[in-house]
This record gives sequence, structure tokens and C-alpha cells, in this order.
Amino acid sequence: MSETTHAGTTISPEQAAVEQELVNTVVASFDKTQDPRLKQLMQALTRHLHNFLREVRLTEEEWNTAIEFLTASGHITDDKRQEFILLSDVLGASMQTIAINNQAYKGATEATVFGPFFTADAPEIALGGDIAGGAAGQPCWVEGTITDTEGRPVPGARLEVWEADEDGFYDVQYTDNRVAGRAHLFADEHGKYSFWGLIPTPYPIPHDGPVGKMLEAAGRSPVRASHLHFMVTAPGLRTLVTHIFVEGDPQIEIGDSVFGVKDSLIKRFEPQPAGTPAPDGRDLGNQTWARTRFDVVLAPAPAQI
Amino acid sequence: MSETTHAGTTISPEQAAVEQELVNTVVASFDKTQDPRLKQLMQALTRHLHNFLREVRLTEEEWNTAIEFLTASGHITDDKRQEFILLSDVLGASMQTIAINNQAYKGATEATVFGPFFTADAPEIALGGDIAGGAAGQPCWVEGTITDTEGRPVPGARLEVWEADEDGFYDVQYTDNRVAGRAHLFADEHGKYSFWGLIPTPYPIPHDGPVGKMLEAAGRSPVRASHLHFMVTAPGLRTLVTHIFVEGDPQIEIGDSVFGVKDSLIKRFEPQPAGTPAPDGRDLGNQTWARTRFDVVLAPAPAQI
Repeated sequence: MSETTHAGTTISPEQAAVEQELVNTVVASFDKTQDPRLKQLMQALTRHLHNFLREVRLTEEEWNTAIEFLTASGHITDDKRQEFILLSDVLGASMQTIAINNQAYKGATEATVFGPFFTADAPEIALGGDIAGGAAGQPCWVEGTITDTEGRPVPGARLEVWEADEDGFYDVQYTDNRVAGRAHLFADEHGKYSFWGLIPTPYPIPHDGPVGKMLEAAGRSPVRASHLHFMVTAPGLRTLVTHIFVEGDPQIEIGDSVFGVKDSLIKRFEPQPAGTPAPDGRDLGNQTWARTRFDVVLAPAPAQI
Repeated sequence: MSETTHAGTTISPEQAAVEQELVNTVVASFDKTQDPRLKQLMQALTRHLHNFLREVRLTEEEWNTAIEFLTASGHITDDKRQEFILLSDVLGASMQTIAINNQAYKGATEATVFGPFFTADAPEIALGGDIAGGAAGQPCWVEGTITDTEGRPVPGARLEVWEADEDGFYDVQYTDNRVAGRAHLFADEHGKYSFWGLIPTPYPIPHDGPVGKMLEAAGRSPVRASHLHFMVTAPGLRTLVTHIFVEGDPQIEIGDSVFGVKDSLIKRFEPQPAGTPAPDGRDLGNQTWARTRFDVVLAPAPAQI
């Protein structure tokens, strides 16, 4: 007259019944929720949360630790630091939500995590303009074409691009209100775009808080594989939030801390020796630089899929 | 070539494989965790969290709402307000943790939720003393005996008792640093205890924050069934954290907002007409009062079970 839980603890059928009855009571407490979707979410959350607690036989001390973890995460979170997004990221929950909502569609470019460092008011640049805004790093020429899955160019598609500087920080992580390493631009009448960015470098997610402590206890690297963020929007097409990653970056093998890497998003950043003429005639002096190509294919908007 | 999720959404086997591969990658990222228990907890949390996301097909907008909910919960939490404990309480997670860690043992008194309003430094009172400390409410004589599961009295057992005043607030919810409605005392050489408290009244959990909004959206009452908190400790015996509830309180039928009620903890609070002599000769003037009895049976300490 006993049953075994996944954690290997043996509990009596009477105990299992007590626990299951509590789950049923909590699920039923959401029966009167007016919004059917909210009801579904809360009842499913209840079941999965209780399944977790019961499977691992969570101790009261561990429950306290969890409450303290959430509290500390709340207290470190402000306008510029979002520990709950980091938590979601390092548990792969952000990436799973993206996978669920951006299912593969023909040859459409794959999506990846949004991250916490986008800002809605990045400056506009002309085609071929520079997003660096004074951010430190080696110049990188980025170009490509935006098409739909039928291969038709998407003239005027809007691109938001943003990235960390070579010290591993986004502009919003500095306290001086700088705007650097981000911009928006529009594809030309043939769907073509180009801009100067910086060669992406690896950097750790903010790891001086509860999430960083958790990663350390788990022996996990907080470092993200080097990447450049894109968000591409156009009427009638599915918005694409993605990155491109740098071929050969060792962090791809070690493991991106937020599980964002997809093979199709790893691009060759072709090193250019100092003195190599720039595609737009820009004078780069004695600097080395790189160039890369990222052709973007947008799926139809969800209602049309 | 399709499969159906619990939410009724049909996804392709390819999509299911993409999602499962991500789960496997995140689980594997915890493989190097040194502490085997932490490893178990993080890997189980990952699996259950992703099962939830995949089952409900969480949208990106819902994910944003969840991040905002956690952020707001963190920001309203301070030394005196603990929104994450409230969240755990209203999802039944606190009660499930208690159920898991305080399994029924012979005739031992049942446990219930600890709640966020205990303080470690409540004043000591003598047997028969008054815990009210000026808190508003009708007096209530509480008495009983502390025994172990063999029926042996537990002399000197320590009782912590705390409760809300008749306006529904604990002392720590006021801003004037009052200490009221709480005390600790010790059972006598026969395991007997008695004290004056207040007749418990129903009150809402703090519901002006994110958790309150969630309860409102779910059509759930934030009100707790009337109760008086106990924590009873004695060497060699399992610490008991519990409440007694008031027989006839309509909130017991409506539903306690944190799922704390157990039938064995519902006690008769016998009303005493004004003028009824008090058990200890106290002059209660023209007040009505009540008396109740709560005999406590402590299980052996976990190591001995």
C-alpha cells in the first residue's frame, strides 16, 4: 500500500490523496474566472506547480529559499535591470515561448530571444549609416536583403538593430544616458539594407544578482555567445526578432547562457585587413574591420499562416 | 503527421521535436551542478515549467504579462509586505509544501500555513496572560494541553500565538510599531496552557497588489477564514505550525483564500454572555467574551519518524 514518487520518496496512498485533493481544490477555486484563457492558464499553472512540488518533495527550507530568491530578484529589478527576464532566459522559458510562437514556416528566418536591452526610441540612420554612436569596437559592415517566403523583396521593411560594445555593455547599462550601438533603418525599394555596426563580442548577462548566483551554483557560464540583435517588421508579415551569431565564437560550443543559438543564425564575419577599401568608400584609416551578410526571410503574419 | 497538445492546439512532430530538444538542452545545462539536490530541483523545475508553457501554448504577450506581474510583486514587497508569499498561498503552493512536510502521524495535530505575519520577537506572557496588547476585539479564553502521540504531556512546550485584530490587521501592518495580538508562553509541568486572546474575525489578505488583481480577475474572495495562529515547539518533537478556525464562520464554506482550513482545526468558540465569570477571575466588566479549547498533539521530530 505505497506508491513511489519521481524523487524516489515513498508516500502512502492516504498522503497522495491528501495532496491530490488540495490540487483539486485549488484548480476548482479558478472555476469562476470569467476570461476562459485566464482560467485555462491559472488552472494549468496550478497543476504543473503542484506536480513540481510533489515530485521533488520540496522542503519548507527550500520553499523559503525560493521566496527569498524571488524577493531578491524583485528588488534588483528596476527600469534598467530586469532579473525576471534573465531568470526566464536562463531557464530557457523565453526561448521556449519564442519557439511556440514562431513556428518554422517554409524558409522563413528563425527567431531567437528578444533580451532585456531593446529600446523603442533608437535613432534612425540612412542606409549605409553607422549605428555605433561612439560605442567602442571594431567596425563591421552588415548587408542583406529582406524578402518574403515567396522570394519577393520587401521594400521599406523596418530594421531595428542593437548590440553591446566591445566591453560587453549595452548603452542602457551605462549611467550617462548615452545612446550607442543601436538604430533603426529602412530597406530600400529592392528590399536591400546595409549599415555599419560593431563586430559582436561575447559578454556575460548581468550576474551580480540572484540569477548569477544560481548559475554559479549550477556551474554554468553566464556568457552569451557574441551576437547582433535584429527586429524586422513589415506590414502583412510576421515580425522577426532574432540575432546573428559569429561563426567560430568558442562560446557557441560552451553554451549560450540563454539558449539563443540556432545553426541557421551563425554567420561568417569576414575579417578585413587594415587598408582594405570599405564597400561605401568610408575611410577606416588603419583599422581592421569585418563584413557579414544576413538575408532575412519573413513569414506571413500569423493570421495568414 | 500531427499531434495534439493538452490545450487542443495541433502541432507538427517537427515542432514538437524542436520544443523537446530545447527542454533537453536546458536540463543538460544543469548537469554540472555540484549539489545533487539543487541539480534535481533545477532540472525538475525546468521540465515542469516547459511542460506548462508547451501545454498552454503561452503567447509572447502573456509572457510579458507574467514578467510584469512578477516585477510588480517584487516592487510591492518590503519588510512588512510579502507578495511572493501571498502568491504562493493563493496558488496553494504554501499549503502543498506543508502537506508534503507534515504528513499525518498517528493522532498528531494537523499543520496549516505559516502566513507572512509571524515575528520572532513577540513578548513572553505568563500562563493565563493576555496577548491582546491593546488590539481591538472581543476577549477569548484559550486553553488546552500539549501532549505527544503517546498521550504524554509535554511540560514547558513553547507556544507562539498571533492573530489579527477585529479590524482585520496584524500589528505589523500598522505603521506605529505597535506590538499587539501576539505573544509566546510556555506550557506548565502538566503540559497545560491558557491565555487570553481575541475572538478571531475574517479578514482579506492584502489585495491592493498584483495578487489581489489576480484574485479579482478569477472571481475569488481574498478573505481568509477567521483563525488564530499557533506555533508549538518542544525538544525531540516535530514543530507544529497551525491555526484554529471558528466553527460556523461562513468563510469556511465560501473558501479560505489560502486553502488553510482542515476539519480537525475547526473549533467551537463558546460565546459567553456579559457578566459570565471568567475562568481566572478577570473582571471583564460588561463585555461578552468566548472560550475555546485546543488540545495539541505533537508528532516525533522527523528524524525519529
